Amino acid sequence: MIHRGDLTVSTRGRGTYDITRDVRDVVAKSRAREGLATVWIHHTSASLIVTENADPSVRKDLDAFMARLVPDGDQLFTHTAEGDDDMPAHVRSVLTQTSIGIPIADGKLVLGTWQGLYLWEHRAIAHDRRVTVTVIGE
Amino acid sequence: MIHRGDLTVSTRGRGTYDITRDVRDVVAKSRAREGLATVWIHHTSASLIVTENADPSVRKDLDAFMARLVPDGDQLFTHTAEGDDDMPAHVRSVLTQTSIGIPIADGKLVLGTWQGLYLWEHRAIAHDRRVTVTVIGE
Amino acid sequence: MIHRGDLTVSTRGRGTYDITRDVRDVVAKSRAREGLATVWIHHTSASLIVTENADPSVRKDLDAFMARLVPDGDQLFTHTAEGDDDMPAHVRSVLTQTSIGIPIADGKLVLGTWQGLYLWEHRAIAHDRRVTVTVIGE
Repeated sequence: MIHRGDLTVSTRGRGTYDITRDVRDVVAKSRAREGLATVWIHHTSASLIVTENADPSVRKDLDAFMARLVPDGDQLFTHTAEGDDDMPAHVRSVLTQTSIGIPIADGKLVLGTWQGLYLWEHRAIAHDRRVTVTVIGE
Repeated sequence: MIHRGDLTVSTRGRGTYDITRDVRDVVAKSRAREGLATVWIHHTSASLIVTENADPSVRKDLDAFMARLVPDGDQLFTHTAEGDDDMPAHVRSVLTQTSIGIPIADGKLVLGTWQGLYLWEHRAIAHDRRVTVTVIGE
Repeated sequence: MIHRGDLTVSTRGRGTYDITRDVRDVVAKSRAREGLATVWIHHTSASLIVTENADPSVRKDLDAFMARLVPDGDQLFTHTAEGDDDMPAHVRSVLTQTSIGIPIADGKLVLGTWQGLYLWEHRAIAHDRRVTVTVIGE
């Protein structure tokens, strides 16, 4: 059985947005007991990560690390027409994930206790981001 | 239904190579209407990314960023027998993707308007690279 | 057909651990001839990579690179309660993979000659790490 669910995530600019519950909802709707949920983001300047969901300072530090590793306005970049944060957003995206496949067991996403699934908005300003969840199950 | 397609990508050395059309062709051949196409690269010194397909300067800047982050001939590296660009190619590969899972809807890959799928050759010289596309669909 | 296999990997602290054979065993048990094996790690301070399995210096250099890129005890980090290596472990995890999808053909994992699948422990001390392999096949 294959089930597809589409999400729109309205971001308020750069930062991480927890989409774990939305993906769980797609899995519940699919009625799959066993299988795989593959999450896909339709963009090249926002991406997906799985990281700790307990202490928000983890995600703050992740963003601080990326801001230092891939500085906005870096003179290295030539693709600058869309702003100082555009090319860094593409770099941050290729360094993280465009798709993530999560197991389903007994009708539920198999996530570790501290694992959350996040959309990471890399552009400075707000965007509506599209995500597709493909459930393959039985 | 499971369908497998194998591609060979002949690179001309370091840089990105658009394989979107080749993957689309495998999906068309599979006749899947709904499902998932998972792309896999058989190498550890070339990798996969999804990035903007409109302005070629994006991919030029991605490569410039990686060349600065993981310099060829870096004194840190001890695995140097195969050349200055060999260990950097392994690092670049683990920082990007070995596999990417893309949804299929209505018989087509679900790619955002500006998304292209690229094989990233990280070695300096030309290589023949193998890619396998696994379509799971109905 | 969907088959799930769970692994526990007991690490001895930071470093890479070859799990290729364990994943092969799950695929063999599934009896799938064609399909996809998606490997998932249940943690946010250990991750998955595919890299060269011939010369161990490759993995030593990968760790040296990461140790320089994301230094333990970096003053940038505020999430430090669990130790100097905790936040670097989260960063290393998002820069590598939480899930990897490997094709199955003729009942076997389709791995290139030099490809090995590794669990990368990013914490300094020993941990028991959980991995789930989801086989979708026929």
